[in-house]
Amino acid sequence: MMVFEANPKSLYQEYPSTVAVVGAKLGNTVNFMAAAWHTMLSFSPPLFAVLISPKRFTHSLIEQSGEFTASFLPYSHSRIVELLGRHSGKDLNKVEAFNLRLEEGHNVKCPYLKDAIAVYECQVVDAPTYGDHTLFAGKIVGVHYDPEAFDKEGRPVYQALLYLGKDAYTTNDPARVVTYDLKKLK
Amino acid sequence: MMVFEANPKSLYQEYPSTVAVVGAKLGNTVNFMAAAWHTMLSFSPPLFAVLISPKRFTHSLIEQSGEFTASFLPYSHSRIVELLGRHSGKDLNKVEAFNLRLEEGHNVKCPYLKDAIAVYECQVVDAPTYGDHTLFAGKIVGVHYDPEAFDKEGRPVYQALLYLGKDAYTTNDPARVVTYDLKKLK
Repeated sequence: MMVFEANPKSLYQEYPSTVAVVGAKLGNTVNFMAAAWHTMLSFSPPLFAVLISPKRFTHSLIEQSGEFTASFLPYSHSRIVELLGRHSGKDLNKVEAFNLRLEEGHNVKCPYLKDAIAVYECQVVDAPTYGDHTLFAGKIVGVHYDPEAFDKEGRPVYQALLYLGKDAYTTNDPARVVTYDLKKLK
Repeated sequence: MMVFEANPKSLYQEYPSTVAVVGAKLGNTVNFMAAAWHTMLSFSPPLFAVLISPKRFTHSLIEQSGEFTASFLPYSHSRIVELLGRHSGKDLNKVEAFNLRLEEGHNVKCPYLKDAIAVYECQVVDAPTYGDHTLFAGKIVGVHYDPEAFDKEGRPVYQALLYLGKDAYTTNDPARVVTYDLKKLK
């Protein structure tokens, strides 16, 4: 039995969602934050978007540098993602406080997380405001990935980190995967 | 060991992703398509976005009607989502062909899928082009959900349908959920 609400208090209906750990750098300042609101925008050119509140420290870094990285971590790293999501770079050097291991970007000046399973390197092409967030649209100028974590079609086969809302995480069930053959599908 | 590609052939690194089954209606024409590219944009006002190629039949329906619904289905419905994603409303009346069971929207004229676990009803407020897709930004004017599928915090506790890319789907593992207590987290 479905219920209807015109103004629901939580809006977690599109979850579970993978978490993009967004990295940004301006001068010598580096910061990382967790973003569950992200999506591909376009195949050609390849464009990827993350939504970030102007209140976030990362927002000003991206706005001024025009670059960001999006690191995708495995389920085993839920604790560090929760920590990143619950502290601000205004108050804390998260890289030092959480002993983050960084790698330098190839085509951006911004680093990414060494523990990532996959990373998008992005250069901002647009940054419109939608309500209380900014959509940072980035051209993907490079992708890092662990080839063992993706099958030959490029599909993830690792234990991904999936956000459920309000400090809770889960992962995908490798025992339950279904693949359709379009030619046989009626 | 990570590999780097400036121009990867697949871009499934942000998956697994829930699938928004997008419903649109113009006059007596109703159509549904599957979209893995979607995200929340804003809490206040509540805004939700889906990315749709201008080649899609649904694109013209939303462009002209200014409304859409986003239905989230459980894992058990992967086959119908695959069928919806692999046929065009230009060639086929999918509602009849796939015996879709519809419910009328409350605050939009567009229907949604009766088998959905949760539904966003949206009115388009912006529709910019990003590369080969249009971002339809919709104000959420109502939410339907199965209260048994979400916990008291609003987090999903059902077997969600997660897209892996290229005709493959999985689901979340209810045996593997971790919740952090921010007060105790160091």
